[in-house]
Amino acid sequence: MPEEPKPRRSPAGGERQRDADRSRQRILDAALVEFGEHGYSGARISAIARRAGVNQQLISYYFNGKEGLYRALTDRWRTLSGDLNRPDAPLDEVVAAFVHVGQTQRHWGRLLIWQALSGDREEGDEQYHRSMVDDLRRRQNAGEIAPDLDPGYLQLALFGAAIAPTLLARFAEDFTGLPVDSPEFVERYREQLKRLVAHLAKAL
Amino acid sequence: MPEEPKPRRSPAGGERQRDADRSRQRILDAALVEFGEHGYSGARISAIARRAGVNQQLISYYFNGKEGLYRALTDRWRTLSGDLNRPDAPLDEVVAAFVHVGQTQRHWGRLLIWQALSGDREEGDEQYHRSMVDDLRRRQNAGEIAPDLDPGYLQLALFGAAIAPTLLARFAEDFTGLPVDSPEFVERYREQLKRLVAHLAKAL
Repeated sequence: MPEEPKPRRSPAGGERQRDADRSRQRILDAALVEFGEHGYSGARISAIARRAGVNQQLISYYFNGKEGLYRALTDRWRTLSGDLNRPDAPLDEVVAAFVHVGQTQRHWGRLLIWQALSGDREEGDEQYHRSMVDDLRRRQNAGEIAPDLDPGYLQLALFGAAIAPTLLARFAEDFTGLPVDSPEFVERYREQLKRLVAHLAKAL
Repeated sequence: MPEEPKPRRSPAGGERQRDADRSRQRILDAALVEFGEHGYSGARISAIARRAGVNQQLISYYFNGKEGLYRALTDRWRTLSGDLNRPDAPLDEVVAAFVHVGQTQRHWGRLLIWQALSGDREEGDEQYHRSMVDDLRRRQNAGEIAPDLDPGYLQLALFGAAIAPTLLARFAEDFTGLPVDSPEFVERYREQLKRLVAHLAKAL
């Protein structure tokens, strides 16, 4: 197995580090698919190892088992969604970016739904979710959202709208006549949600 | 077991019919809870029978097993949601009514999520979903929705927003500071979605 932690002398330090980074990355990619398909309790470390092309011991070594691996995925999502939620980007583009990730990397959306169905909470979730509302409030103060809307409830409604194609794929297909994984659907839904957000900016 | 199909002569016809209707109703109520908690494949007929206080044979007799029972629940949901989606009611009230049912009868929302996750389709789903979009298009023509919005995509976004408290209960709690099953949350979210719909009516 080439992915075992290497003995200290070979290969050289920099290359060893890059190998390790690539292995971690491959494990996380595989874990995202497995957790997304089967949820936390249904996911199997052996399947993740097989998909990543590493042995299970390496997953233990890097992530300290299933729970640690799941926590690493959660951290990765927060980093990714933090990157999408750029404070300097207009709100309609932020919402459109979430739709795009949800559809082009569907396992994130499924992971979120499993997490929501199970009712489990990860450490730091509450703080993270509140910071999303704080951001909407800041945008409202800057005139991006009409003053009659409450940022907390709006955050919930926009979140539901953004995740709808992942959650309600068949419904979406019936509603729009397009498969949700087609580029045309993704483009149109992004465009429509941008318009919806534009409507929310105007005072009544 | 008092719920067995009765012999033909006693009690009198009308009362016998009412008993049968009540039994069917209790079975459907119990089935909604069981399917909502565990999904189709996880639901057990024995648990439904126990909850309804009938024996399993009666469920076979009335509904022809698990599949028939599930189909009867689907029919019931279509009737219920058809009643909510009154053509003469303003759109904001229709959306608010769905939020209310989703929160006060949470098992419907969970049932929908299970169905969506499994990717299963019930007979008539497509036609039913298209009729929902037709209704939005009619409302748009009547001036309830701005002309730049596409009824199919808007239907998806509103559906996602309406089901968000059921799907994303913990998120909702973090976003708003209120538990989603509190009357205060339900009332505020209804009010906020009504405002959101009002924004969508105004041309940009």
